[in-house]
Amino acid sequence: MPDVCANLVSKQFFTFAEPPHELVLESGERLGPVTIAYETLGVLAPDKDNAILVVHALTGDSHVAGCYTKDDARPGWWEIMVGPGKAIDTERYFVICANVLGGCMGSTGPSSLNPATGHPYGLTFPLLTIGDMVAAQKALVDHLGIARLLAVVGGSVGGMQVLAWCARYPEMVRAAIPLATTPRHSAQSIAFNEVARQAIMADPHWRGGDYYEQGAKPDLGLAVARMIGHITYLSNESMRKKFGRQLKSRDALSFHFDAGFEVESYLRYQGNKFVERFDANSFLYLTKAADYFDLDDYAAAGLSAAEISFLVVAFTSDWLYPTEQSRTLVRYLKRNGMDVSFCEIESDWGHDAFLLPNERLHSLVAAFLSRVFRERSADG
Amino acid sequence: MPDVCANLVSKQFFTFAEPPHELVLESGERLGPVTIAYETLGVLAPDKDNAILVVHALTGDSHVAGCYTKDDARPGWWEIMVGPGKAIDTERYFVICANVLGGCMGSTGPSSLNPATGHPYGLTFPLLTIGDMVAAQKALVDHLGIARLLAVVGGSVGGMQVLAWCARYPEMVRAAIPLATTPRHSAQSIAFNEVARQAIMADPHWRGGDYYEQGAKPDLGLAVARMIGHITYLSNESMRKKFGRQLKSRDALSFHFDAGFEVESYLRYQGNKFVERFDANSFLYLTKAADYFDLDDYAAAGLSAAEISFLVVAFTSDWLYPTEQSRTLVRYLKRNGMDVSFCEIESDWGHDAFLLPNERLHSLVAAFLSRVFRERSADG
Repeated sequence: MPDVCANLVSKQFFTFAEPPHELVLESGERLGPVTIAYETLGVLAPDKDNAILVVHALTGDSHVAGCYTKDDARPGWWEIMVGPGKAIDTERYFVICANVLGGCMGSTGPSSLNPATGHPYGLTFPLLTIGDMVAAQKALVDHLGIARLLAVVGGSVGGMQVLAWCARYPEMVRAAIPLATTPRHSAQSIAFNEVARQAIMADPHWRGGDYYEQGAKPDLGLAVARMIGHITYLSNESMRKKFGRQLKSRDALSFHFDAGFEVESYLRYQGNKFVERFDANSFLYLTKAADYFDLDDYAAAGLSAAEISFLVVAFTSDWLYPTEQSRTLVRYLKRNGMDVSFCEIESDWGHDAFLLPNERLHSLVAAFLSRVFRERSADG
Repeated sequence: MPDVCANLVSKQFFTFAEPPHELVLESGERLGPVTIAYETLGVLAPDKDNAILVVHALTGDSHVAGCYTKDDARPGWWEIMVGPGKAIDTERYFVICANVLGGCMGSTGPSSLNPATGHPYGLTFPLLTIGDMVAAQKALVDHLGIARLLAVVGGSVGGMQVLAWCARYPEMVRAAIPLATTPRHSAQSIAFNEVARQAIMADPHWRGGDYYEQGAKPDLGLAVARMIGHITYLSNESMRKKFGRQLKSRDALSFHFDAGFEVESYLRYQGNKFVERFDANSFLYLTKAADYFDLDDYAAAGLSAAEISFLVVAFTSDWLYPTEQSRTLVRYLKRNGMDVSFCEIESDWGHDAFLLPNERLHSLVAAFLSRVFRERSADG
């Protein structure tokens, strides 16, 4: 039995914003009731001052670490980072991870039943922002009775949520760790997301988002969307190392359109695997929220009054959110008087690097969290 | 009337490889008859020593410069480079440009009628290589009675054809100008092409390539494929300059899935425009040929015995075929004793830079061609 399975977790659900007290979204629309799926690890201290909120990236879920059952072989998505004795040490910290609003892993999203109609929302689900996702997480944190989080930690689109937390609820955040992220999408990042969305919407099984009660789902379109994403998550160098021009069959070129190169076969596999676990409409909503995110929109809101310690981390081969975008973020935070540590970590693994084993990342995060944990009573 | 329309051209057709003398492809398959659409500009000298073959990129055609009629407002795709007094000066050189084998602009390709069946080839068309395209061009050059080309010039996938010319028919090439190209695709380039192909094949109107005699074509899939390509043709920087995060409507975020950002609207426009002029199966065949291309496969064939002058040009912001790949090419050519000039041109415009006005590129090409033209009798 692998070691990870000693760490049992369970998915829990928190429902709020029952009408007429709906969640008011940044678009002005109202949404309710809202359910948030979440998991926790470790023990909340009596002072409730050891809580760390981990926020997931585009297609993640609440299952950050541990196992659902003792013989569950599939650990959480950040098992390498979260657990007893790890960088985010569950023997010391109380870790919360929630599926984002708009997702499809237990939290309310476009695939959820709209109680007003008895049918799935589909595209009648309102468009969300990163700020809306964070508002739903805040409701959960309130529900858990936590007045101030020791830290909010997340990579990629999770990093955007970290930033939105700091801007919207600065008094509730002691420390923030945005990893491999950006204060706003470049035109190129928007372009990749838009093409991925177009691939989904081009699938006739998408039916304007109204496919849940039909036989077929837009699996082919969603698989293409995922493949586009995958290219941007890996670096040129990591692809070269992983696949190069290796052919699937040992001998020569196949001269047909089947996957001939290893990299083709890898992408097809990733695309097909993804459609089993992810909802196409959620992909549309979450990518759109990421495209909409612009830290400037939240700037006036409060950051300048906050006392938050930041650890900003970028990775050398991340070409989706290149280091320069993290540097822009660091300059912005410093201009606003924040306490900021910044590190660019050497890695060949592209944007995905924050999800992979990296001693430097682990020791940075562990030391940073130890410091803020130590200092928590001083500024308490 | 614009100046370009003084330069009238017409599309011509050359048919060869009539059965039983079919063209034998690198796969071992036989194809015939083969028609090649081509255009010429300038006058072939009595000695036939002033001919320059321009080869086009992935989705180009034979219409390199000039106009079909005096009131034709749409000039050729390399009008800025080819014409009277231009870098490739049609007052001095005889310029030939042919649509590639496998294309859909007049040359035999998957959309052509298979004379054996009376129906379009579709996927019964044999898979091609860059070498096969060049073999068809060689038949045309032979037909025009030209024993040795003054130069072969082309960018991107055209650059691969330039290299294949030098490797397969070194005695027929005096000078070669491969621009913004690579000796072989990286895993990342293969990955982009594969996802584009998957987008086409995911379109139910593709019908396994057998859509020509049906009502609908796989337009949505082809548009997505083109959008993916477009992202790789532009640089991050050029996208930032062109679009940034500009919104289509003057006011705020639209909160729906229509094209909200300018870059989204641009990509949709490019995708939709492309399907009017291009055949989806040709896109599959031509991208596959590009993925298959590996200069090493032709290496033993003859380059080392050749006396060819090379001008290799890369562009700083080309991330599809980065400068390092041109450097690899230059090292390879020098190791084989070739006369090589290499220049990396500063440009923000990404891979597309070779198609855009650039004084440096124009003067380099003009000077290089003048030199080989001057030296032609010395080594003739």
